[in-house]
Amino acid sequence: MKKEELWVIKLGGKTLEDEVSMRSFVKVLSELEQAFILVHGGGIHATQLADKLGVPQRMVEGRRITDAETLDIALMSYAGLLNKRLVSRFQAAGINAIGLTGADGNAIPAQKREVKEIDYGFVGDPILSKVNTGLFTNLLEMGMSPVLCALSHDEQGQMLNTNADTMAQIVASTMSDSYQVKLLYLFEMKGVLRDKADNSSLINRITLPDIEELIKEGIISDGMIPKLNNAKEAVNAGVESVIIGSIDELDLILNKQNGVATQIVR
Amino acid sequence: MKKEELWVIKLGGKTLEDEVSMRSFVKVLSELEQAFILVHGGGIHATQLADKLGVPQRMVEGRRITDAETLDIALMSYAGLLNKRLVSRFQAAGINAIGLTGADGNAIPAQKREVKEIDYGFVGDPILSKVNTGLFTNLLEMGMSPVLCALSHDEQGQMLNTNADTMAQIVASTMSDSYQVKLLYLFEMKGVLRDKADNSSLINRITLPDIEELIKEGIISDGMIPKLNNAKEAVNAGVESVIIGSIDELDLILNKQNGVATQIVR
Repeated sequence: MKKEELWVIKLGGKTLEDEVSMRSFVKVLSELEQAFILVHGGGIHATQLADKLGVPQRMVEGRRITDAETLDIALMSYAGLLNKRLVSRFQAAGINAIGLTGADGNAIPAQKREVKEIDYGFVGDPILSKVNTGLFTNLLEMGMSPVLCALSHDEQGQMLNTNADTMAQIVASTMSDSYQVKLLYLFEMKGVLRDKADNSSLINRITLPDIEELIKEGIISDGMIPKLNNAKEAVNAGVESVIIGSIDELDLILNKQNGVATQIVR
Repeated sequence: MKKEELWVIKLGGKTLEDEVSMRSFVKVLSELEQAFILVHGGGIHATQLADKLGVPQRMVEGRRITDAETLDIALMSYAGLLNKRLVSRFQAAGINAIGLTGADGNAIPAQKREVKEIDYGFVGDPILSKVNTGLFTNLLEMGMSPVLCALSHDEQGQMLNTNADTMAQIVASTMSDSYQVKLLYLFEMKGVLRDKADNSSLINRITLPDIEELIKEGIISDGMIPKLNNAKEAVNAGVESVIIGSIDELDLILNKQNGVATQIVR
């Protein structure tokens, strides 16, 4: 039997702040026939809130150090403000969204990151074998669209800040056992570019062996490296394809138009 | 066929701040055999957060005026911090909690309160006929315990601050069609007292006709008046009994011990 199609869509932080992009994003999703799960973070809002509350933020290699106060800020920002704004907006567009953290319904159990050279604080790495795919399947079958924010828990009462790209990958990977999953990383750029300043340098298609090559050449760098590594893990786990593209091209991406985003395939 | 038992438990704001009470509360609930739905607000935390963010709070007759900034604070405080702390804590105790606002799964649609003498701002009154009892029933049947915070939505993209006592009553009232519902208002006092300074003046049992009498006598006053009016509406809607009592007596209340709380019956 052919598996049902499922889109796992990760929404980049900057896109959440762009009202014009968000409006068209919600409209396009409201017309989507396939089931979807949305994953979002919200680093920009969290940073602003931390600033207002006078909580200094420490970043190491682009990653936030999550002390107790910063975790509270993530809870307030991701799970509170941003998640509920998204959910109520989806509801208005006729999408029966349900907001979740990894603690809700025990959706995403995680392991607190071990302290090595760097102590990342209350940061968790999702445990693949423990992802509650049954919960997601049940909610989808009830006609709901899960809206997951980038927080997990350790099953012992501790919420944990979690990388949203990784969370989306883990959900896509585990759901691919029972769905035909496409993983979509949406952000403000067109996709993987050979030259970041030139949209026409978009790479349309990347195969798994290409990834290491492109990293070596320096074309894939910085924050794009973990995104591509997540893409690789997803494809290896059975995700049909991973697409990295612009929120403003969502319509074209969903209609499988070529040349509008970067597709990562086996 | 005998209906299944369901407890709808509303947790008062001050109790959320008391670590000792919360610890025993979670333990007692983890041993409860019956299904339950929890409803919580969090006014104390919201007020502290507003203070830190320099957002002045205006109260009229004990009710918060919810301007746009105050709504954001409620989203961050109730739906973010407090709800997720509760959910992760329940999970650690083996309770499969799922946190919700009235927007999630379209649980509680509400009507923005009409502006008369006072403009309460982004405040909503739940619409009884629209409460999504099917969602609650499905989640309960999946073995989950919904943890609702005091926020609803207008189905047009606007979140609305909602009185937690009323929300608990509305959920209890609508769920009483398919469950044998008990509504439990837990706070820091023993129940309805004839003399607020004297715990031994507890009124064990109040019938609906008593309520008006006790209000006239001034024994039921202030914040207790809407609580008792909610109790009356719940009983009239088919809720088996309403109990007002102390979080620290939860064990005894659940074991139906007499003389530990106030019971409101027809």
